Amino acid sequence: METQTIDHIGIVVENIDKAIDFYEKNLGMKLIDKEELKDRGIKVAFMVGKNGESAVELLEPINHDDMNNTVAKFLKTKGPGLHHLAIRVEDINKALEDLSAKGLQLVDKQPRPGARGHLVAFIHPKSVMGVLLELVQEKH
Amino acid sequence: METQTIDHIGIVVENIDKAIDFYEKNLGMKLIDKEELKDRGIKVAFMVGKNGESAVELLEPINHDDMNNTVAKFLKTKGPGLHHLAIRVEDINKALEDLSAKGLQLVDKQPRPGARGHLVAFIHPKSVMGVLLELVQEKH
Repeated sequence: METQTIDHIGIVVENIDKAIDFYEKNLGMKLIDKEELKDRGIKVAFMVGKNGESAVELLEPINHDDMNNTVAKFLKTKGPGLHHLAIRVEDINKALEDLSAKGLQLVDKQPRPGARGHLVAFIHPKSVMGVLLELVQEKH
Repeated sequence: METQTIDHIGIVVENIDKAIDFYEKNLGMKLIDKEELKDRGIKVAFMVGKNGESAVELLEPINHDDMNNTVAKFLKTKGPGLHHLAIRVEDINKALEDLSAKGLQLVDKQPRPGARGHLVAFIHPKSVMGVLLELVQEKH
């Protein structure tokens, strides 16, 4: 498996609109995409710097009290903050096969549709030295 | 203040050599820099993807038992994992002035030498919705 680049860094927030405003006004970042991922129960917003390809993904649970939702649970137990690291790969199916063969624990055995029309899959933090890792294959 | 791009994402690890090996073998990343930052009591390693500018910075405390060291304390209390987000700015002094004027709490009032010869300064997570933020001004 070959990492192409860092795709984004996922950050859990209490209120996505306030967070977008904060990142725009204080850190000079620009909103490039905002959507609701209903199947994952979250709202997401992608913010980038001036010359930057890599993005910050802000995540807010749609229902803050749904403790079956991992993002709502994260927010309730740990508070807002850094949540996951996403790296871009050429071929996500091949990457998942490869990581599984190496003994890493996959959260998603198959890629699924993610934000921005990309294919995504998560790897368990237990297998990645405490980091929740997301693989992203760009939509072509 | 204008964010140029995401410079790196800082990840605290138990053992930096094992972590470098893990990121190389499992995630196909390449080591581009490894150094000891004695004044901060840490060892750091920068890993990048194939086409990637943004990096992962692995951090290990030099002395794991020094509870005055924030990285050692992080490792002991939270375990290994995502630690900070670093964004690149054009003029770090201007950025610090700007953020301070906006009411954000600075950890470093003045920039100081960081890894790779860059100038860096940290902003307190209380002011950044739970995210420890590092500003990085590239060495020219």
